[in-house]
Amino acid sequence: MTQNIYDDPSFFDAYSKMGRSLHGLAGAAEWPALRALLPELRGLKVVDLGCGYGWFCRWAQEQGALSVLGLDVSEKMLERARSLSGASAITYAKADLEQLDIPPASFDLAYSSLAFHYIEDLRGLLDKIHRALVPGASLIFSIEHPIYMAPRNPDWLIDAAGRKSWPLDNYQHEGPRVTNWLADGVVKQHRTMGTLLNQLIAAGFAIAHVQEWGPTDAEVAERPELAEERERPMMLLVSARR
Amino acid sequence: MTQNIYDDPSFFDAYSKMGRSLHGLAGAAEWPALRALLPELRGLKVVDLGCGYGWFCRWAQEQGALSVLGLDVSEKMLERARSLSGASAITYAKADLEQLDIPPASFDLAYSSLAFHYIEDLRGLLDKIHRALVPGASLIFSIEHPIYMAPRNPDWLIDAAGRKSWPLDNYQHEGPRVTNWLADGVVKQHRTMGTLLNQLIAAGFAIAHVQEWGPTDAEVAERPELAEERERPMMLLVSARR
Repeated sequence: MTQNIYDDPSFFDAYSKMGRSLHGLAGAAEWPALRALLPELRGLKVVDLGCGYGWFCRWAQEQGALSVLGLDVSEKMLERARSLSGASAITYAKADLEQLDIPPASFDLAYSSLAFHYIEDLRGLLDKIHRALVPGASLIFSIEHPIYMAPRNPDWLIDAAGRKSWPLDNYQHEGPRVTNWLADGVVKQHRTMGTLLNQLIAAGFAIAHVQEWGPTDAEVAERPELAEERERPMMLLVSARR
Repeated sequence: MTQNIYDDPSFFDAYSKMGRSLHGLAGAAEWPALRALLPELRGLKVVDLGCGYGWFCRWAQEQGALSVLGLDVSEKMLERARSLSGASAITYAKADLEQLDIPPASFDLAYSSLAFHYIEDLRGLLDKIHRALVPGASLIFSIEHPIYMAPRNPDWLIDAAGRKSWPLDNYQHEGPRVTNWLADGVVKQHRTMGTLLNQLIAAGFAIAHVQEWGPTDAEVAERPELAEERERPMMLLVSARR
């Protein structure tokens, strides 16, 4: 059973105020890079694993996806998603990704944004996603980067000249990391990049693209606070093919 | 033209005294993990890119490789390799990996240990390696990990409790890194892990295994100084298939 921190009232309130909650995909700095990995969606059957407010589901529908299934463990997120989506070809359903139950060969695209780092049995989930995809279909996801998750003290060090560095340690020690992000005691699962990629390969996927997200010059010019994201990657974007 | 630091007399002298120079493969902590990625060598045509003293070439011959070609940019390294190898099925030849010229479809295995981080045009080299391999053949290599290469100050921070962390910064800034390892002004080429993997994929390789090397418990028990290698990865081992 995944920890369902999103239904914790204080977490949910804080999450609701984040850029990506208020402004949807446009509020997520990594969205342009993630979108660039996506295939043409017209006519595709899409599943979104950890759909949150359903921003991606609605975008996929706008792009002409044949059907969109949005899955999330949080009732609150699904409620909000349904209220924002109105009548549509999107289906939202409650699902714990640790115990996913979806039919085989049913989807042309599996998408997931910043959900997999909560999953303890990621290998089991990847097996199920592989089975749920048709041959040639893609799994495209973002996840917190292992560099971001690993440290005992995941916070910037600032030297006398004001330069930031990220105190990486504990990298080879895989397992839970407890942080106080928006609420106390949020549990994430650290794996090395090698483990993540090898689990994808072992599940039968071919790695198609790996991007350690960082802002472009234009993005830093527009939002100078993004400059620190060049120092160490916070997010990892992956495209894999069944 | 690759910087040929290995023919710098003070570098060569210092390198000669390292464990991996004195004790060969057994003196390289990552060798057991790298060896585990290798196929059965009996009957294979093998090329070693950056063969140094030829330790791997001799081991490959002992394992029954049909032929072994050891390439290196350093005359001094090749001299030593030839003197250690005696009469054998190994051929050593001088080659700048930036301007590699090897015939197509000639090898069953391309191997490289800690050489690719010196290469500026890695994509060009990977294209040539891909052409030089027969279909189904493997490229198996180690390279300095991007986490290890990226920082402006690539040295441990030690806190009041004696704990080590690695001050990661500058990660997204790809390009040369000048360090003073064994000699002053050694130039390495930093690329993100994403760029490295995407270059392999673009050259036509399928990623088979990615390992961010760290010591096992048994290895740390035997050599306690290896414990720090758990805090951040220093080396990356990759297996890719043509």
